[in-house]
Amino acid sequence: MEPLLGELPLRFSRLPMFPFFDLAHYAASVLSLKEQRGAVEISCHSPIACWFSAMLYCFGGSILSSLMLGEPPVAFLANTTNVLLASSVWYLIFYCPHDLFYRYVSCLPIRLLVSGMKEVTRTWKITGGVTHAHSHYKNAWIVMIAVGWARGAGGGLISNFEQLVRGVWKPETNELLKMSYPVKVSLVGAVLFTMQHTHYLPVEVHNLMLFYTIFLVVVKVAMMLTEFRTSPFAVLENALGSFLFGFQPVCMKAKAKAKVSYNGGTPVNESTSGGETGDSVKKRHAKKTE
Amino acid sequence: MEPLLGELPLRFSRLPMFPFFDLAHYAASVLSLKEQRGAVEISCHSPIACWFSAMLYCFGGSILSSLMLGEPPVAFLANTTNVLLASSVWYLIFYCPHDLFYRYVSCLPIRLLVSGMKEVTRTWKITGGVTHAHSHYKNAWIVMIAVGWARGAGGGLISNFEQLVRGVWKPETNELLKMSYPVKVSLVGAVLFTMQHTHYLPVEVHNLMLFYTIFLVVVKVAMMLTEFRTSPFAVLENALGSFLFGFQPVCMKAKAKAKVSYNGGTPVNESTSGGETGDSVKKRHAKKTE
Amino acid sequence: MEPLLGELPLRFSRLPMFPFFDLAHYAASVLSLKEQRGAVEISCHSPIACWFSAMLYCFGGSILSSLMLGEPPVAFLANTTNVLLASSVWYLIFYCPHDLFYRYVSCLPIRLLVSGMKEVTRTWKITGGVTHAHSHYKNAWIVMIAVGWARGAGGGLISNFEQLVRGVWKPETNELLKMSYPVKVSLVGAVLFTMQHTHYLPVEVHNLMLFYTIFLVVVKVAMMLTEFRTSPFAVLENALGSFLFGFQPVCMKAKAKAKVSYNGGTPVNESTSGGETGDSVKKRHAKKTE
Repeated sequence: MEPLLGELPLRFSRLPMFPFFDLAHYAASVLSLKEQRGAVEISCHSPIACWFSAMLYCFGGSILSSLMLGEPPVAFLANTTNVLLASSVWYLIFYCPHDLFYRYVSCLPIRLLVSGMKEVTRTWKITGGVTHAHSHYKNAWIVMIAVGWARGAGGGLISNFEQLVRGVWKPETNELLKMSYPVKVSLVGAVLFTMQHTHYLPVEVHNLMLFYTIFLVVVKVAMMLTEFRTSPFAVLENALGSFLFGFQPVCMKAKAKAKVSYNGGTPVNESTSGGETGDSVKKRHAKKTE
Repeated sequence: MEPLLGELPLRFSRLPMFPFFDLAHYAASVLSLKEQRGAVEISCHSPIACWFSAMLYCFGGSILSSLMLGEPPVAFLANTTNVLLASSVWYLIFYCPHDLFYRYVSCLPIRLLVSGMKEVTRTWKITGGVTHAHSHYKNAWIVMIAVGWARGAGGGLISNFEQLVRGVWKPETNELLKMSYPVKVSLVGAVLFTMQHTHYLPVEVHNLMLFYTIFLVVVKVAMMLTEFRTSPFAVLENALGSFLFGFQPVCMKAKAKAKVSYNGGTPVNESTSGGETGDSVKKRHAKKTE
Repeated sequence: MEPLLGELPLRFSRLPMFPFFDLAHYAASVLSLKEQRGAVEISCHSPIACWFSAMLYCFGGSILSSLMLGEPPVAFLANTTNVLLASSVWYLIFYCPHDLFYRYVSCLPIRLLVSGMKEVTRTWKITGGVTHAHSHYKNAWIVMIAVGWARGAGGGLISNFEQLVRGVWKPETNELLKMSYPVKVSLVGAVLFTMQHTHYLPVEVHNLMLFYTIFLVVVKVAMMLTEFRTSPFAVLENALGSFLFGFQPVCMKAKAKAKVSYNGGTPVNESTSGGETGDSVKKRHAKKTE
């Protein structure tokens, strides 16, 4: 496809993330933090917890991958410029008088732009993670996938502990139990770039980066415009799931139960998790009865 | 005893763990995971969380000791062969059609063999941990004990966080509050091998390995055959406990209370922990009253 | 001020912490552990959890800062003398017959001395943390503040996980959400010593150490003598808070609500956190209703 696209992929792969794309990433992250339930109240009575939470949202990926590779998790703080950038975005979004900045950023066109640019940074993060892991362990492709995934999904995977900073604790759910779309797509990306890096995928890295990014941005924008929430992998997942993991009697029963209760109105996961996580479920019921 | 046993201990200490003993360790670990409440449901609706949980069971020791020594906790993923081995054991035990493999492995004779071989790997893990810690800190015997213990007990000590992956959270119990037998025996082993390594114990390492392993295997098998659940250290513990820690008025009262309520039918720990861990206990009571 | 104070600051800055000040730090830490609700019961039925908890209290700062800088968190165990010192203090305070030692240490004059000396070690910890971070990252002042703070506040910042060891879990509160005085003053100290270290503060380090320590000790002793519990920074905080973070409509409402409910008798934080941390709050209400 070189002749077709010419220099474009190569030039694209040399796109600098700093400062504009980083800014967009920080803005999108802090926006999603502000839209968390109770985040605004936290921002009022303990700005430091709020700032810490925001940093976990913005730099979660690098923190997690550093922990995984036994490097200093505070390394990201050494990049003073980026931290100050993220902090000022956090300050403007949370504390700007009359929420002016928040309103401005969260109006649809700006929001689309910001979210699109954030998705671009995801590609860079994943490739960065894969290469970094490769520099530690030669051809340990599992490590490469893991670190690439951690770098790309970042905030999502440590959400339980990010919530803990804000005094929220939801043990009955985590991103491994019920993956959100960004976590899934980061995993797919990590696998692709690892395969490319270990030459199992006969594509040049800058072509892969271009097409993966286009996919990310298009899907993200489409998801935001249409209220279409189910992940584009749903079909693939179900096929793969029932092919690999579907042969177990209990699971088949669970699925059947799930279908029934789904027609009955309650979401699938609720019912399949009926027997699971005794305490948490009990708690949930308790809450309902309260 | 050299003439008596001849070459046996030396040859035994050169026994390779890979692949058969490792396989047994993975099988035993994944079996105990599958027998956790709610694990099967998890395996149905989120295989990735289940796989992650299984890896924590299989490689918990190396993960924990890496964290303690500031090394990359993902190092175990670099050993691709072992990870694939563990993963395939996990797959067969959880997703084999009609649970054939699970039924096969969990029938008593096989189970005895597997559990016995798993205990052998424990010795190797502990010695490995002690030597590894020694290579970091010369003669820091506390570190050697800690790392040896972590490597040997592994999964048990991080069980709270392993459960969190499956959406279960039981803060009111952990392996330090109420040690299980494997954790205890690993601690004893770590102490013994550290003393041997620092020459306070005038035994050759391969003799110690042989006798410690024999002890492990015999006790384990005995525990599985007879439904005898109390640890063989119970007597020693009580003696030591009341000698070292028994002189405090409150504890004496607690013990008295415990005895009473024990005759009354409720387990000791329940009553002694009466005042302790206010919230968790409240919760438990709340649940009962619900 | 050199002529005025002469050699005093310099000599003071060369004061050795080992063994007396360290001893005082261990005593004060273990005392505050023993005064935690339910700690004594734990000490009866699982001394190991209690010991581990005590070590987290005594060495929390060095553990946390090691984790942040990707160094072995067990490093503190390599300093056998200090660990044995702390352990014997722990043993005497928890298990001395008839609580003799505890009663002796917790009588006011001794307690004042011990607490005062503990505050002195705080200065040394903070300066140590700042210098140590500087040796890793040149002029990364955010890292220096973070590590200095972690080393100085230590136990407080990891309190959630220290409680977890004792089977207590209070997700709805942590030291970032609602800072205690020691955590605040450590943060201030970390900022000051970092500014001094990066030459933004034109003071010599030993002068700063002297005056910061005097401030710590005086405030601590005053707090213990008078039942005056509000932090000396309260005024400054409120001014700064309303100047920096006060312009947001929601916060103003929250503050108003807070004031009202405060006059109404319930504490501020309770009411401002009305919307926040849904679950935890629900739980708290549930408890009340129980």
